[in-house]
Amino acid sequence: MAKENIVENIVWHEGHVDRSQRESLLQQRGVVVWFTGLSGSGKSTIAFTVEHALAARERLAYVLDGDNIRHGLNNNLGFSATDREENIRRIGEVSRLFADTGVVVLSSFVSPYRTDRDNVRTLLAEGDFLEVFVNTPLEVCEQRDPKGLYKKARAGEIPNFTGISDPYEAPLSPELEIHTQDLSVEAAAEQVLDLLAARGKIPAPTSAETV
Amino acid sequence: MAKENIVENIVWHEGHVDRSQRESLLQQRGVVVWFTGLSGSGKSTIAFTVEHALAARERLAYVLDGDNIRHGLNNNLGFSATDREENIRRIGEVSRLFADTGVVVLSSFVSPYRTDRDNVRTLLAEGDFLEVFVNTPLEVCEQRDPKGLYKKARAGEIPNFTGISDPYEAPLSPELEIHTQDLSVEAAAEQVLDLLAARGKIPAPTSAETV
Repeated sequence: MAKENIVENIVWHEGHVDRSQRESLLQQRGVVVWFTGLSGSGKSTIAFTVEHALAARERLAYVLDGDNIRHGLNNNLGFSATDREENIRRIGEVSRLFADTGVVVLSSFVSPYRTDRDNVRTLLAEGDFLEVFVNTPLEVCEQRDPKGLYKKARAGEIPNFTGISDPYEAPLSPELEIHTQDLSVEAAAEQVLDLLAARGKIPAPTSAETV
Repeated sequence: MAKENIVENIVWHEGHVDRSQRESLLQQRGVVVWFTGLSGSGKSTIAFTVEHALAARERLAYVLDGDNIRHGLNNNLGFSATDREENIRRIGEVSRLFADTGVVVLSSFVSPYRTDRDNVRTLLAEGDFLEVFVNTPLEVCEQRDPKGLYKKARAGEIPNFTGISDPYEAPLSPELEIHTQDLSVEAAAEQVLDLLAARGKIPAPTSAETV
């Protein structure tokens, strides 16, 4: 590149680089895939599987979940309705920044209240928020109980536990609803990948990539 | 790619994709460049200039500043010492997530308290936090007063204004100190780019890219 072009590129700038420039670099579009469902429904497993599949396709994705949020950004919040609201609000704002960077954000949170999820949708541009309802019945989640949380909740050791002592408000019109009972994790992840491709967020897979 | 490889790539995953995999994709390393200095010191102008220069080199960078943080994630915080601490803590946590994604984060905040900045440094892995002290004397900042804030602070219309009615604690050993009085914005930005290359965060510029 000619020297003067570079000089031109780093002259004094008052404003941000356009999101579209980052998206061109990444060959994808920023988007928030919001996985909601009961504890044990399979949200995070599906999100991780999608993350790995996107990495294999050389797409930039990032999972936000309880592990990296509740122990970090939101380590000063509990599980009251007010704290849950602030929890989801902050995650929504962070998701928005990631989407603006051009990243495919995979946000995996119980996020039981409809209003809180809808507020996140409102934060984002039209089409940038894809709500994925991981619809696994409570009985199945409780039977799986991978972290032993339901057992503790039934014993009264965990207050405000969604599905037991706190409500879960199912999405009314999610972009995708996954019935994990009828599907393998791989097939569930494929549904999310297909949604991303259909919405033009990632390139459609080549025939070799179609499982 | 063979079909079985793809199938292999999207089998059930329990954990995150490694940060190093994202960094390989991006051909850069995640890092937080933390610009600190008085209002009007030139932090954001330098950050934006660096952002544009990185975009021209096809590197993925993102500026966090008052505009996208104070009006979003931290819109429920004021300017008391406690709120400033929480403000910087949250920005630190978000910066950490971005660095983990492999992004070059350009965080531009007055961040007047040494302890708050050092706490952010502690959050991050060794070498992932590069503190850039934009050292412009108060008199110069006040003379520039691009937003008319110093005038209002002197008139008592803005309480807790750093440099006037609130302290600014200069970094003791920043990775870079920029004296904007002696430098053009371009030259200041070059110093940051050189630091990023010297620390192995971005590829060293080709000779054609050297200004």
